[in-house]
Amino acid sequence: MAKVFIKGLPSTMMDDFQLNVINLLQHAAENYGEREIKSRKLDGTLEVFNYKTIYERVKRLANALESLGVKPTDRVGVLGFNTHRYFEAYFGISGIGAIMVEMNFRLSPEELTYIAKHSKIKVVFADEQLIPVVEKVNDRVNFDKIVIMTDRERTPATKISKVYHYEDLLKNSSPNYDFPIIDEKSSCFACYTSGTTGMPKGVYYSHRAIVLHSMAVIQAVPVNTNDALLQLVPMFHANGWGWPFTATMVGAKQVFPGQYSLDNLKPIIDLLINENITISNGVPTLWIAIHNYLSSLKDKPKFNNLKVLIGGSEPPLALIRGLREFGIEVIHGYGSTETTPLSHINIIKYYLGLSQEEYEELKSKQGIPVFPIQRKVVTPDGKDVPWDNKTVGELLERGPWVVKEYYNDPRTFESFIGEGYEIWWKSGNAVTVDQYGYIKIVDRLKDLIKSGGEWISSVDMENFLMAHPKVLEATVVGVPHPKWQERPLAFIVVKPEYKDNVTKEELLEHLSKRFAKWQLPEIIFTDSIPKTSTGKFDKKVLREQYKDYFIKREMIE
Amino acid sequence: MAKVFIKGLPSTMMDDFQLNVINLLQHAAENYGEREIKSRKLDGTLEVFNYKTIYERVKRLANALESLGVKPTDRVGVLGFNTHRYFEAYFGISGIGAIMVEMNFRLSPEELTYIAKHSKIKVVFADEQLIPVVEKVNDRVNFDKIVIMTDRERTPATKISKVYHYEDLLKNSSPNYDFPIIDEKSSCFACYTSGTTGMPKGVYYSHRAIVLHSMAVIQAVPVNTNDALLQLVPMFHANGWGWPFTATMVGAKQVFPGQYSLDNLKPIIDLLINENITISNGVPTLWIAIHNYLSSLKDKPKFNNLKVLIGGSEPPLALIRGLREFGIEVIHGYGSTETTPLSHINIIKYYLGLSQEEYEELKSKQGIPVFPIQRKVVTPDGKDVPWDNKTVGELLERGPWVVKEYYNDPRTFESFIGEGYEIWWKSGNAVTVDQYGYIKIVDRLKDLIKSGGEWISSVDMENFLMAHPKVLEATVVGVPHPKWQERPLAFIVVKPEYKDNVTKEELLEHLSKRFAKWQLPEIIFTDSIPKTSTGKFDKKVLREQYKDYFIKREMIE
Repeated sequence: MAKVFIKGLPSTMMDDFQLNVINLLQHAAENYGEREIKSRKLDGTLEVFNYKTIYERVKRLANALESLGVKPTDRVGVLGFNTHRYFEAYFGISGIGAIMVEMNFRLSPEELTYIAKHSKIKVVFADEQLIPVVEKVNDRVNFDKIVIMTDRERTPATKISKVYHYEDLLKNSSPNYDFPIIDEKSSCFACYTSGTTGMPKGVYYSHRAIVLHSMAVIQAVPVNTNDALLQLVPMFHANGWGWPFTATMVGAKQVFPGQYSLDNLKPIIDLLINENITISNGVPTLWIAIHNYLSSLKDKPKFNNLKVLIGGSEPPLALIRGLREFGIEVIHGYGSTETTPLSHINIIKYYLGLSQEEYEELKSKQGIPVFPIQRKVVTPDGKDVPWDNKTVGELLERGPWVVKEYYNDPRTFESFIGEGYEIWWKSGNAVTVDQYGYIKIVDRLKDLIKSGGEWISSVDMENFLMAHPKVLEATVVGVPHPKWQERPLAFIVVKPEYKDNVTKEELLEHLSKRFAKWQLPEIIFTDSIPKTSTGKFDKKVLREQYKDYFIKREMIE
Repeated sequence: MAKVFIKGLPSTMMDDFQLNVINLLQHAAENYGEREIKSRKLDGTLEVFNYKTIYERVKRLANALESLGVKPTDRVGVLGFNTHRYFEAYFGISGIGAIMVEMNFRLSPEELTYIAKHSKIKVVFADEQLIPVVEKVNDRVNFDKIVIMTDRERTPATKISKVYHYEDLLKNSSPNYDFPIIDEKSSCFACYTSGTTGMPKGVYYSHRAIVLHSMAVIQAVPVNTNDALLQLVPMFHANGWGWPFTATMVGAKQVFPGQYSLDNLKPIIDLLINENITISNGVPTLWIAIHNYLSSLKDKPKFNNLKVLIGGSEPPLALIRGLREFGIEVIHGYGSTETTPLSHINIIKYYLGLSQEEYEELKSKQGIPVFPIQRKVVTPDGKDVPWDNKTVGELLERGPWVVKEYYNDPRTFESFIGEGYEIWWKSGNAVTVDQYGYIKIVDRLKDLIKSGGEWISSVDMENFLMAHPKVLEATVVGVPHPKWQERPLAFIVVKPEYKDNVTKEELLEHLSKRFAKWQLPEIIFTDSIPKTSTGKFDKKVLREQYKDYFIKREMIE
């Protein structure tokens, strides 16, 4: 049943202030003008700005964009590492009413081409290191204009014809620009989210969503102008989880690391220490690498006020404990591209009176919704699951920074339910809820295996199999079974040195330590597991290939 | 020049989630259901609820309101002390789409009658202690229905006819209610602000304004579910500065003190200590009294985590230091009824590298705007003042929780400037801005005295005069002067014991320690100073009486 909607009286008495992204930077430039923004150049040195000088550069950029012919609602593609130029692009492009398409340069040329065509990109901005990527896409798209973001004096060589030099454009543009007021429901940024199947889907964020999200992030991590952010999450990844915006809102110092790699983390550690960083972020993989690096140091640094928001997937307990030894506090957040991204935060309720161990266990969960995000966890027939920490349901979400459609994409129909003012996004995540309201992601819904009326988490089983010393890769999928509905199949790639020295029985015995007998899978040894373009196991291919596995066997038997 | 307004493309892709006040309570009931809400009864004991039980009571209240005939857009008047019932009224009344008129029961019966008639109140809720006040207003207004909020079993006696008992209404109503979705621009609360002249002006808050303000308050004071609020600011005073809403949003514990008085602060101190309060609020007068009480105790308590937001007027440095000795940290905020109320916050920028003394001096200033509040400080000809800590201008404000008109009131025309999407509220406050962007309120603009092209702060001069041991009361107004534009007149009431033992010269000498010679006022001894209904010096009357003072003298001379 759709909710009753009331239009109240009188609606004109409060300021009809439009929440615009540019307001964030204007607020910082006006009130925290001298607070520093540092950006690591290609040569490893730091370029130093502040909110006032960056705002002036953004006004120059706005004029430059107009001189390039960019108009409100036009799409501008950006491919770049985390630098001050990417930060400026956020504000310059959205400030004139255009839409910035944040392109993940790690996608395949096919995917990037699809994004460029689907979003109708005319002008593209790219870091000089990414020229080869842009050239490949340009072969198929033929961009109107390309702006190279570079530290160099001269425009780097490229075979693309209409090329502009970012710094030259700024130098030749006026530092005066009067930003328009933009209807807050207008789009400002687009991120394309790549699932395991099909081409990426377009998530278009509104000004209102970005500003409200910026205001909400401090529910998760209280920050103010005295904090210093090291932005490690890629800025094309759901706007770097929105942190550059929240940091701007409160006038915090910001440090952009430029291009960095897990193989050489020294520059990152140096920034953490030398810039007195108090806030950072990233996926577990990155922070596991940082932890390993810190542990390898002879003189182990001790941070006294560094908080790290970890998301993307669950931070292992060992990581939380390990970082704490260096004085780094982990905050566990959860979200999706479709939710701008923050939707849940693991706030610890200290008044529950749990033991230290129980609290740590709790910390690995995705947590409770940030206000005013609403969530439901429902069974396939739409009923709320009990808060028993074991019944699995799909997580549905809605709120002012949750999308209600994919841009110009028929896949919208399968991903949303509801009507009118109450539309829910179906996250596709299978979760449980504990007695305190904390959710825990068990699996992707489509990867969950339903056997004999009970659920089996494919992710759990894979992780446990890959922890076996002889196993290199493992993936588990559910395939139809005439009696049990579905049964798990485990595909195992054995480490070369154990090739002829492993049995199904020993793997099943290993699994028995953790899983009940009825959950144990059928084991299939294989030389390789099919993968998607982003390197994930392609379970869809396996499910299709093996869909008759048990049915055929039954017939033979 | 009006700003360009752009309607962007495409505006439908994010959830059109309406920010409704009831969302705050629903969020807390869902995610922090067990967190306590305590309310001090008339007998001094505490009644204990939690967000879940309060939400159930609010749903009963919503049904009760409908059974009383209250419909969307109807106005419901509420007169009450800080209790859980006032808190429930916030959500119940706004939740069904009606408008709660928060009535300051300390106003005169004439003013309350004006408010009741102007806002067209039909149903009124009142605490039992306030029945006499309601009776006086009812004589002139004749309310449809009156609901008595009381701890007693039976309805207290009153000569009003249609009387309902709050708890009976709840008991007899269903605990199920499906709240409608309300257009976020609809009004939910009204506060009438009484200036020194004329009848109070109606400030009508929208759902959107209240929710955005709730989200912004944590920029000033970071709170989460582990905090405990003691709500001391009257809840009718711009929604208790919005704190009950912010506390609800994050699921903090809340304690409502009921009726209390400055003459007996023991119950307040007991709550601060016994309930492990971490957050409170109030005007300087209250916290000066609390500080005096704490200082008088033999066993002086030491708080280890108590922050107090002080506003309304500037907290004296001695108070900030005094409270710190008890472990209480003062946060200085600034706002107005017209700004919901928080507009500025004194965030300390620790990176400025000032001395401890300079930082304390800074703390007495009103600070910098909370995002996304915008402010201008302008001279009479509309130019921005320099940030020199001495040029005085009027503070103008705008933002999503700033009004752009007074409800149904011609005084709107003199209080706002601008057009379209950019309307500024003229605060009437004369302020300076320092080099760090912190404003300091110097005076009310109309009380500021302009003499020979320079400004004199009447407030400064009054405070300095009243610090003289022989002075009981002092007020300073500017009156026209043929040569100097205006000159200050100081009206002095001498303490009875010094009646015949004081000279103008010694007061001028006292003033000379602080003020330049050209600023010194003409002194006039008087037996009493005219006052307004709320007890403030009525400068308007004095200015009118003495408007020819210098002009006549000039003619005689």
